[in-house]
Amino acid sequence: MTTVYGMARSGNCYKVQLLLEQLGRPYRWVEIDSAGGQTRTPAFLAKNPNGKVPLLECDDGRLLAESNAILCWLADGTHYLAADPWQRAQTLQWLFFEQYSHEPYVAVARFIRGWLPEDHPRRAELPRLLEQGYRALDVMERHLDGRAFFVEAGYGVADIALFAYTHAAADGGFDLAGYPAITGWLARVRAQPGFVEQAC
Amino acid sequence: MTTVYGMARSGNCYKVQLLLEQLGRPYRWVEIDSAGGQTRTPAFLAKNPNGKVPLLECDDGRLLAESNAILCWLADGTHYLAADPWQRAQTLQWLFFEQYSHEPYVAVARFIRGWLPEDHPRRAELPRLLEQGYRALDVMERHLDGRAFFVEAGYGVADIALFAYTHAAADGGFDLAGYPAITGWLARVRAQPGFVEQAC
Repeated sequence: MTTVYGMARSGNCYKVQLLLEQLGRPYRWVEIDSAGGQTRTPAFLAKNPNGKVPLLECDDGRLLAESNAILCWLADGTHYLAADPWQRAQTLQWLFFEQYSHEPYVAVARFIRGWLPEDHPRRAELPRLLEQGYRALDVMERHLDGRAFFVEAGYGVADIALFAYTHAAADGGFDLAGYPAITGWLARVRAQPGFVEQAC
Repeated sequence: MTTVYGMARSGNCYKVQLLLEQLGRPYRWVEIDSAGGQTRTPAFLAKNPNGKVPLLECDDGRLLAESNAILCWLADGTHYLAADPWQRAQTLQWLFFEQYSHEPYVAVARFIRGWLPEDHPRRAELPRLLEQGYRALDVMERHLDGRAFFVEAGYGVADIALFAYTHAAADGGFDLAGYPAITGWLARVRAQPGFVEQAC
């Protein structure tokens, strides 16, 4: 059976859980306390030298890291990842946007506010993280205006990846009140068959 | 003809140039001074609302952003991107590693040292960027030990993406002397048919 090494509170890990639930695929979840150093043990580093979750282990022992690479691998051949080359290219564009222009701000702001003490020096990063995170939300809002999902082919891994931290953006201090297109899209994602909320 | 909007000094843009040269595909290069604000004009934002280069424009006007999504789109169906699903998954793993764990440190250190004045406050970021950049280089060194290229299928877009800033790591203050596997791999990339050095 497929094994996911993940931390339930992590949006990157939730992506993989959400897709597996929607695919109806059985899997084993091994909870890894990334914040507590469990991705830096010799045993874990032997599986993923980059020391990050999520990590997928196939039943034959093959290993795959990087949440969005895992999404594409699991979704390939299903309607969650279009077969059409241009639709796939658009999907990848949004997956890279998520990891470069969205997650490092929206997710990191959530981490600093939710995991670190009130007087932690990294709180000084928050104004810049909010500014950059709002810039990513602006790009999403503009794209979703008049569109149901990120890629024309319909709901798929680009939506799953961007939902993971956008749905929890308030935890990072973001106010989505001025983002009606994003708010509508969040509701459409939640209405998808097999949708599950993040556990924590 | 395919148009690339890019900045020659940018590693992310060089990736696209290198692949197009190796594919032998004709293209038009439109130089965009990203550092000088040309990605923030209304005309450019109409093409890429995220305000970044590289940006690919197909001859029918379709637009694709994100360097690594562009690489996959251009390489699809060629030996620079394997058709085998597992090899493709591994390729994507390394492409996401590059954008999340490598570029934000190795490329940003190069930018701060090469583009900003000596007394710029962002110089204070350099120690952390070096620490995190060396961590990415350690992951690459470990993976390349005993391997010719990043993915078993052979030289391809994962190598192109990781070459783009690793070959210029010294500009960011990184010393590759302790990285024999990376150094050997850089030489193997340079020996590939159609290889071109970055212009600037």
